[in-house]
Formats: sequence, C-alpha cells, structure tokens
Amino acid sequence: MFKKETYIARREQLRKDVGHGIIVIPGNHEAPCNYKDNTYWFRQDSTFLYFFGLQREDLVGVIDCDNGKDYLFANDYDIDDIIWTGPLPSVKELAASVGVANSGNLKALAKKLAGVKDFHYIAPYRSDIRADLAEWLGLNYNAVDRYASMELTLACVKQRSIKSTEEIREIEKAISTAYNMHVGAMKLAMPGRYEYELAGFMEGEAWKGNGPVSFPIIMTVHGETLHNHGHNNKLTKGRMLVMDAGAETAMNYCSDITRSVPVGGKFDARQKAIYEIVLGANMEAIRVTKPGITYKEVHQAASRKLAEGYKGLGILKGKVDDIVAAGAHSLLMPHGLGHMMGLDVHDMENYGQINVGYDKETRPSEQFGLGSLRCGRRLQPGFVITDEPGCYFIPALIDKWKAEGKCKEFINYRELEKWKDFGGIRIEDDILVTKTGCRVLGKPIPKTVKEIEETMAK
Amino acid sequence: MFKKETYIARREQLRKDVGHGIIVIPGNHEAPCNYKDNTYWFRQDSTFLYFFGLQREDLVGVIDCDNGKDYLFANDYDIDDIIWTGPLPSVKELAASVGVANSGNLKALAKKLAGVKDFHYIAPYRSDIRADLAEWLGLNYNAVDRYASMELTLACVKQRSIKSTEEIREIEKAISTAYNMHVGAMKLAMPGRYEYELAGFMEGEAWKGNGPVSFPIIMTVHGETLHNHGHNNKLTKGRMLVMDAGAETAMNYCSDITRSVPVGGKFDARQKAIYEIVLGANMEAIRVTKPGITYKEVHQAASRKLAEGYKGLGILKGKVDDIVAAGAHSLLMPHGLGHMMGLDVHDMENYGQINVGYDKETRPSEQFGLGSLRCGRRLQPGFVITDEPGCYFIPALIDKWKAEGKCKEFINYRELEKWKDFGGIRIEDDILVTKTGCRVLGKPIPKTVKEIEETMAK
Repeated sequence: MFKKETYIARREQLRKDVGHGIIVIPGNHEAPCNYKDNTYWFRQDSTFLYFFGLQREDLVGVIDCDNGKDYLFANDYDIDDIIWTGPLPSVKELAASVGVANSGNLKALAKKLAGVKDFHYIAPYRSDIRADLAEWLGLNYNAVDRYASMELTLACVKQRSIKSTEEIREIEKAISTAYNMHVGAMKLAMPGRYEYELAGFMEGEAWKGNGPVSFPIIMTVHGETLHNHGHNNKLTKGRMLVMDAGAETAMNYCSDITRSVPVGGKFDARQKAIYEIVLGANMEAIRVTKPGITYKEVHQAASRKLAEGYKGLGILKGKVDDIVAAGAHSLLMPHGLGHMMGLDVHDMENYGQINVGYDKETRPSEQFGLGSLRCGRRLQPGFVITDEPGCYFIPALIDKWKAEGKCKEFINYRELEKWKDFGGIRIEDDILVTKTGCRVLGKPIPKTVKEIEETMAK
Repeated sequence: MFKKETYIARREQLRKDVGHGIIVIPGNHEAPCNYKDNTYWFRQDSTFLYFFGLQREDLVGVIDCDNGKDYLFANDYDIDDIIWTGPLPSVKELAASVGVANSGNLKALAKKLAGVKDFHYIAPYRSDIRADLAEWLGLNYNAVDRYASMELTLACVKQRSIKSTEEIREIEKAISTAYNMHVGAMKLAMPGRYEYELAGFMEGEAWKGNGPVSFPIIMTVHGETLHNHGHNNKLTKGRMLVMDAGAETAMNYCSDITRSVPVGGKFDARQKAIYEIVLGANMEAIRVTKPGITYKEVHQAASRKLAEGYKGLGILKGKVDDIVAAGAHSLLMPHGLGHMMGLDVHDMENYGQINVGYDKETRPSEQFGLGSLRCGRRLQPGFVITDEPGCYFIPALIDKWKAEGKCKEFINYRELEKWKDFGGIRIEDDILVTKTGCRVLGKPIPKTVKEIEETMAK
C-alpha cells in the first residue's frame, strides 16, 4: 500500500473531476472456482485499489461529491472468524489506514444509497458486482451496465493514465519477476520438454515474486495461433517458442513481457531473418516514442520497419509507404503495437478501449490490424505502454486473403507459401514515456539474437 | 476425457434416478479476474464434467427424462475466431465425442426450455450461472437458489460418491503431482526462506503436472491459524511448517495432501512429541477404515488416539472415552477428520455438506469440532476420503475456553499455557475404501519423523 496521503489526494481529485453525486466503487468478492468456498486467488478490483488501496474482499468505497466525505463499508469479521484467521483489523481501522474517516457495515451502505438518483459507478465485469449494484441502487440486473457513468469512467482514465514515480517503482518490481520468469524459461527451452513444464516454471516464479501472473501465460511453439492458452505441445528443434508472460506485485502492478526463442538455443537462418525484422520494429518504436506523438504514429513507424524487412525477403513488394497505407503488412501482424499497462495488464480495459486508448482527437482505425490497436492517443509523460510487434504466418488467414485477392499488388503470395510452416515471433517490452522520449522499464531481459543464444547456452 | 460410453452410462443412470422433467447442467463460463477478458484459469463445473466430460467454456448440457434424449447447447465459434484460435471442433462434434446425439445453439436452448415447469438444476455457486438460469427458466435472480432440485442433487451424490477404477487412476495421477510438490518443498524448508517461495515452487509443480492447484495452497509457519492463505512469513528455526496442497489433473481430478515439517529439517523434542501423536491418529484412521463403519466412528477412533497422546503430555486428564465424549480434545483440533475427494477437493461441496457427507441414518453432531466433520456417513467401497488429523495451539481459542471454564475437568489449562507458542501440525492422506478395508492412495510421500528428516537432509 502507498501512504494514505496518496489515496486521499486521488479521491479528492476524482471528486473534483466528477463534481456531483455519489460515486460507488465496489471492491471485489472472492471468485468461486468449483464451489463457493474454493476460490481462485483474490484479485481486488483495480479502480478500488487505485482509490482505496485495500486488499480485503467485500469492501465498498463511496466518494460523496455533494458532502465532500469518503466512506468505507463492509461487515466486520465476527469473533468466531478471528479464531480461525488470527487477529484482523476492523473496517474502521482499514478505513483509517487509507485516510477514510467514515465507515460502516453493509446496512449502513444500504441506508447511504437508498433513494440516491445521482450515482456513479464503473460498468461491472463480474456478475456478482452487477447483482450488488442492482440491489443497492434499485436497478434491474440487466439494466446495470446501461447506467454506468461515463463521467466517472473518464475521470478515472485521466488520473490512472499518468503513472507516478512510486507506481513506476512497482511496475519495475513486476518486471524483475518477469526477468526471472523469462530468463529461467529460456534456459529450459530445449527439445523434448513440454510447453506446460515451462509455463509451470513461470507460474512458480511469479508466485515466488509474491504475486499472481498478470494474465494467463502464453507459452507456445505455435506463436501464429494468437489466442493460444493450451500448453500441451512438445518442444521440437526448428520451432520458435513464443513466451508472453508477466507478473503482478503484491500491490497488483503488472508486467507484460514477450520473448521468442528458438527451441534448442540456436536461431537458424530463417528464424534469424524474421527475428531481426521484428526486433527492428520493436527498436524503432523505442526510438520514436516521445511526448506529443500519437501511439498510432508509433505503430505506423514500426509497421514501416516490418514492411521494409518483408520486402527484403521478397514476401512484400511495392513502396513501403504504400504497403503500410494499404495495410498489407497487417496480414503478418493483425494486432496493434501495444496497450497501456499499470494496475491491469491491459490497463483500465474494463473502462472500454475507446475511452482509454482514444480521445476526441484520435479515433480507432477501421483498417484490419491497425483497427486492433488498443491505444492510439497522443502520448504524455507518465504513460506506460507496451511495445510488442510480431510476425505470424497464419495459414488460415493467408489462405483467406489469397482467395480474396486482398492486397495482391503488395503481397507475393507465391513466396509467402514457403513461410506457412514457420509459426510466429513476438518481442515485447514495457516502456515509460518520459519528458523527452521514453525509457524501457526494468532490468533488461535478453533480447538480441546474441543475448538470447548466450543465455540459452548457459 | 474418458471414453464416451462412460458418460452415456452416467447420464442414463441419472435419468433413471431423477425420473421426470428436464435436467439442466450448465458448464462454466470463463471467470473474469480484473476485467472481462483477463480471466482466471478455466475451471469446468464438476457436475458438467461428470456427465458431459467436455472442457470448453459456455456449454450447456440437458438431460431430458421425459423423452429420453440428451442435448448439448452452445454457440459455435465463428470463422473469425478460428483464425486466432486454430481449428476447433463444432458443438455437434463435441456432443458426439461424449455420445450426445442432439445439439444446438443458445437460441435452440431457449426454445427447449421455454415454458418448462418440471425442471431440475443444482444450486449455482457462480453469479453468472445464476443469472443464466433465471433467464432461461423465467425466474427471479434472487429466487434461483430456492428452486434448486433436491432430487437431482441426491442423484448426483449417489453416483459421484463411488469412484470407478478409471477415476481412481486419475486421482493417483493427481497425487503423483502432489508428491513432487511436497517432497520438493520439504527440501526447500530451510531458515531464511519465505513461505511464498515454497508456495511458488508448489504452484509451478502443479502446472508442470498440467493442472491447476486443487485449492489455494496453505503454506504456513503459523499452522494454528487455520484459515491462512497469506505466505509472507520468513521460515525460522523452531517453527513447524504446515503445507496443505494438492493438484488437479487435466481432467480435474484432485489430490489433497498435508505434510508438516520442522524448518531446518530436524524435529526438536516438543515437535516430535506432538508429531507422533498426530501421526498416531492418522494411522489409526487408516487401521479402522473399512466398509460398514461410519466416518464419524473413524473420526472418534482418531480422536481417542489424540486424547491418549495429550494425556501422556499432561495437557489433558481423565478417562480417554470421557474426554472424547465431552469433546475436550477438540480444543486442539476444531475440525473434522476428513472429507470426500474426487472431481472437487471437497467433493460435491456445492451440493451441500449435509447432502454429501450425511444421510437419513447419520446426522451432523452439534458438538464443537465433531460438528465440523464434513463426512460422517457409513463408508462404502469406492469412497475416496481424506484422513487429516491435526493439532493446533490456538491462543485465542485456548483463552476463550479457559475464561469460560470449558471442559476444565479434562483440560490442564496451566500445562497448556506452555504450548501456546507451538503453532500447529496436520498430516493428511487420501484414502480409498476397498472391499475389505482401505488403501492409502498414490506414491507414498514421506510421513514418519525418520522419512521426513531423511528427505530434508538430502
């Protein structure tokens, strides 16, 4: 937890930005896995964490813009619980620890919210919270999402987009854990092992860093299958292994790192060729990222590097700028360059991508690939954003485009056939926009061909 | 997955046992962690697994007792999804793989259930499933739990209580993983390490076995704090470390093992004294467990061993039978001896403890400790049950009993004071009731003082 003044200041700012009514910020409940009392790890809601900082389940924060007061509501544990759990702070003590003067039980919450018409909440992503909001505010369960507050949403985005020094410190801690996860897994990436062994190693390293993974680990010798959470393949020589994984700190700040390594530890000529192209795009994004540029422009700068590289291999043809304008290169990278990162790995994704990654000035593109860019806004100092270009030879997608004759003036489909068995590569860092440019966060994790081969040889 | 004949036979039996109406068995959805698309690992509902065996999210199984047909409902992935996920079987193919002839999308499900009055479902433990049932069956969200079917619940308990040979094989696989988790962690249990390092190691071993942990790992040098999921303590010499952890197989069969080891690898005299008493109780349960005896009787046999041991240490006094009848020993073990285990670590806990662990003949006790016994029924061949006696010196509980003068004719409170800083010990195995007695399942995990000290010395 940060010191209480941090949370007081954040709530004060939020109250000012929203300006009227009552803001309700429910903390999460435990999440049942296969029965009520067998739960997944407890993950506090990120909005609640940002403004109230507390990790206990079943808490509700209220920020009253009309009377200027903050509240924390929850039922205290009873004495029987405490025999099993050991001594626990009261709700009043929890509230005080984050500078909240007013507290009460859930009956008091019901009283506080009864009949309130000018309320604000974030659209819930869990059904139990939806049911709570319906009950507290007298809404129909199915209508809850509709009444979510855009004023509150945008006020939260405004504050959370700019990371403070103490937040950056936490994020770098999460990257330290990711370092251990990735470097250890690289050394294990030898033929004969299974993906789940390496994923298991990473899970363990994340917990040893005292937090969960920040998202389900991607660990696959089929990097071209983008939504791939199975870990059942055997590692064989000749495959690239894509490892996309990060950790959360005990305060739930995240890391999100991708490394792609050749099974066995040595890149062959084709692997090296594609790897250098993707690395070039990753480095180009770092080179151009600075305040004032939009991340859409950074995405396009990285895209030009990719297009240039593919041209060199004879996969694409024509002028680089024309290729990028037409989106032909997106056949091999159908996703955006990156997303914001903070208390969520896709930071604030529950607020809606359009509200977080775009604004009045910048709108999402309609184009395939670029349209998937989660963050296209103009960058400001304090933004933390991922830089994750990739190259994927997706046979089903290649066949579809080919059949449609899509971008055929730029794509050498005959040449492309030779690459359909390649798989995929992605390289991802977490970067901070500084006053003058940007900085790759955290302890550097082996990234060049040479660094990776040396690490895997140890 | 087992072969499809297994699932066909189970559904046929269920249809016969329930006899009328339409049985709805919803599979689980993904469980959102901190936003909709960042999910915990997918855990299929155990009832769905038992009767339909499929691991995909968003499936709904229907068993129609009136027309004798089985159904599987879900929306197929569309072609855009498949580009990202790789080829996936259709709902029709999934249905066929578990011997279900009829399938359809969610619209077809709505049609099938529209206006049905004679329906059966299990009370949901997740809010999203509660909302689904409300919608499908035209119920009020808050009324869903009330209309759950006791006939279906008891018919499920009947089948799932008796484990088949192929189920036992899966459970023993889960215990093999638990072997790796526990033996590895024992070797790490040295002064200076933190609990979370060992818990992290165990998480990793579970995933290397290709399944999640079967419940949140308990790893604590404060074993006396029974509901303890924090892992922040440093391991120091003189503390007993309680490790209660198990894994699930890819099919979600569980293991649940507890070992308690002295930090540093050598039991001191006090630790050894308590350990031998708890081990005696664990072994006594194995000695007496057989078909025909109730698990309440087994609990009491183990309790006598505990009482005898504490008498020897001067903590308890009086006749062993009187101590146990009064429940005086429960001050040091306020929980039951064990619970059923299978597709859930507390098997079928979502059906209600009274429906699973008890029956018309055996009812839960009102007594402290014994009242927490999750399974008191008469044992039958094929039951899998945990045997987990423990000893905990819980200062708050000791103080409470002492102040109330509870069982003071049996408890030497002055002597007990000397043990208040001890912590706790628990020893747990998973046992199968056989035709003539019982068998401890799985590869034996070091359990005696000698075995543990030898393992930790390596």
